[in-house]
Amino acid sequence: MKPSNLISLDQALASVLDQAQRLDAPESVDLFLADGRVLWADCISPLQVPPLDNSAMDGYALRLADVTAPGTVLPVSQRIPAGQVGTALLPGTAARIFTGAPVPPGADVVLMQEDCEALESGESGEGSGGDGVYGSVRINVLPKPGQHIRRAGEDIALGSRVLAAGTRLTPAALGLAASIGLAELPVSRKPRVALFSTGDELVLPGTVAPQDMRPGAIYNSNRYFLRALLLRLGCEVVDGGILPDHRAQTVQALRAAAQDCDLILTSAGVSVGEEDHVKPAVEQLGELGLWKIAMKPGKPFAYGKLRKEGGGFAHFMGLPGNPVSSFMTFLVLVRPFVLRLQGVQDVAPRTVEAVAHFDLPKADARREFLRVRHNAQGGLEIFTNQSSGVLTSAVWGDGVVDNPAQTPIARGDRVRFIPFSELL
Amino acid sequence: MKPSNLISLDQALASVLDQAQRLDAPESVDLFLADGRVLWADCISPLQVPPLDNSAMDGYALRLADVTAPGTVLPVSQRIPAGQVGTALLPGTAARIFTGAPVPPGADVVLMQEDCEALESGESGEGSGGDGVYGSVRINVLPKPGQHIRRAGEDIALGSRVLAAGTRLTPAALGLAASIGLAELPVSRKPRVALFSTGDELVLPGTVAPQDMRPGAIYNSNRYFLRALLLRLGCEVVDGGILPDHRAQTVQALRAAAQDCDLILTSAGVSVGEEDHVKPAVEQLGELGLWKIAMKPGKPFAYGKLRKEGGGFAHFMGLPGNPVSSFMTFLVLVRPFVLRLQGVQDVAPRTVEAVAHFDLPKADARREFLRVRHNAQGGLEIFTNQSSGVLTSAVWGDGVVDNPAQTPIARGDRVRFIPFSELL
Repeated sequence: MKPSNLISLDQALASVLDQAQRLDAPESVDLFLADGRVLWADCISPLQVPPLDNSAMDGYALRLADVTAPGTVLPVSQRIPAGQVGTALLPGTAARIFTGAPVPPGADVVLMQEDCEALESGESGEGSGGDGVYGSVRINVLPKPGQHIRRAGEDIALGSRVLAAGTRLTPAALGLAASIGLAELPVSRKPRVALFSTGDELVLPGTVAPQDMRPGAIYNSNRYFLRALLLRLGCEVVDGGILPDHRAQTVQALRAAAQDCDLILTSAGVSVGEEDHVKPAVEQLGELGLWKIAMKPGKPFAYGKLRKEGGGFAHFMGLPGNPVSSFMTFLVLVRPFVLRLQGVQDVAPRTVEAVAHFDLPKADARREFLRVRHNAQGGLEIFTNQSSGVLTSAVWGDGVVDNPAQTPIARGDRVRFIPFSELL
Repeated sequence: MKPSNLISLDQALASVLDQAQRLDAPESVDLFLADGRVLWADCISPLQVPPLDNSAMDGYALRLADVTAPGTVLPVSQRIPAGQVGTALLPGTAARIFTGAPVPPGADVVLMQEDCEALESGESGEGSGGDGVYGSVRINVLPKPGQHIRRAGEDIALGSRVLAAGTRLTPAALGLAASIGLAELPVSRKPRVALFSTGDELVLPGTVAPQDMRPGAIYNSNRYFLRALLLRLGCEVVDGGILPDHRAQTVQALRAAAQDCDLILTSAGVSVGEEDHVKPAVEQLGELGLWKIAMKPGKPFAYGKLRKEGGGFAHFMGLPGNPVSSFMTFLVLVRPFVLRLQGVQDVAPRTVEAVAHFDLPKADARREFLRVRHNAQGGLEIFTNQSSGVLTSAVWGDGVVDNPAQTPIARGDRVRFIPFSELL
């Protein structure tokens, strides 16, 4: 048996990210459809926000100098709803103003309506300035200079960078782009990923009832979660189905997929077992590196390149067949890779410190990702069956502890926690 | 001016959740399309996983009693790839076996191939048992009882509950459902949400260039992030556009939306300002509660009900118009509400403890959600302009500090952090 390369996860990640050049050819998408896409170029603001000094409150705009003491009554000389622009404020008067409306020239403060009292026309006993239509206002609380005025350009300066290239767009980012008037954004195109499972023992759910499964057959589950993960990461998925354990058919399927995809992703078929046809097929069509990564779950992993007929190549990544291994390997290697293909620079999930409410007296020789979840006390509990062949632990858990090799854990220890929400 | 109700966020949340009955009429969706949907009924397993005792490794299945010391050589009597079933193991022989293949009757242990050495036929000097085709194997490491055998039913017992009703489906949950042979899942139907913005000052991005904006006009940004947030939460969005500041048109639009939607969501138009037509329109069509919530950003909020013509009602929620207030109010009130409409019970975001690397000497009288982000040292930094009218702070930040009323923060203090990834 040829020895495979045993490497650390960090080495493996650095190697695959080295190969992840941003895909060429951006596309312009409507802002309504841009959530989750990755920005191709910086967004520079063509305007300032707010465009004019405006009111942060519903209330009254006035001159600070006109208010000498609480109880002062000023006639209301104009009324400025949001969306309209007032005229220069007559001295000795106030303007009724609403949130977002431009502050009229001459006013230097806005008083919120809760701090004053609206009086009917004539009620104030004063007549100067206003025409009487709007009545007058009694000021109960002395305003502070500049109070409740949002300054022009305070939120976004003209020409400033509002969003940086490589940003993965979120709802908030879409809102921000809209606020500077953008209706479309230049984004990286979606990586096209061909997804294959391998193995004659695999049966597609729905095609054979549980009681009719032949001995040794199992339902294909990897295809479902890998597809969903890829979609969440902004990929277009070409479902290649289940590859038969047959060399020529494997070569044919991979060759076709390489033509029009950016990445071929397989699960199972890349360990050193004799039944694997993916490995020789990829070697025939390009090049392949088989690694054993010092991580648990998820030891076997392959990265390679498949030649396209017109030149260039498609990336190849081979995941282990065990669902938990496949899931975890995807999260730590494929996820950052497909984000990088789209131009995201910061692909590391944010980890937080948490407290173990469990013991792991016998640590693994490999770096281990333990499926855990928070309990009511805020500590982490561990899923008892960490070696399961199904994804129960990943459904039960709300994240993983990233535990270094050879590191036992005792109750109360502080550990590195990665929430699943950071990985999806 | 009528006093509005000032209530705590917790009171407001409890009140709206009280109204959030799960929507009737589940639907069955293909597993490929079920990511993010909410499970209507428990998933009970119709089978056990693994179906048979099987091998966790590529290696050799044998009888522990046949291996007395390291160096023992056993003839290989059969070969069992994954997907096939072997025959009862001949005494004194080993079976070549691959990961996932059923362990043959009689074998009680699996030896991983790294712990043995395959010998060509005849090389071993022994002939008993095997027919010579498969050669023999030298066992270099003594196996432990039961080693590398995954037991039938170990991961999922027949009849056990694999996923609970009310679970929001994730990629891992889809994989788990697939592994018990399910091709479709019963899920809650998508809440149908009519989304409106209000205000004559609003302009849709793309319709007017920045230099042509009339004074006082601003681009509508709420519509974009609210729509994206609703879609992420599994809703179907009916975009009602911008409501004009006109009473009869507002009534007409809301009446129509109430007919075929579960929830009407508006931004702006529910404060005590005189320019608001949404409030009287909702009161005309049903009932409305206007609240002032003791939270910052996001004071004004409305919940009501709009009568449907055929009986029943649509929910109404009115958000503040300021984008940051609208965003935050959505996350803490609308998000849990629309999840509960789908049957999710646990709608509270998970908070974590973090360390402030900033000072907030003057705390607000209201509970405040401060936009912050982690720095390289793992502490939280605060966005300087917390009162902004645009979403820069929410784009810059990776979450919020949930800071109780009247609670100053000093550098080094431990604070409650809610990552945005928990809220999206």
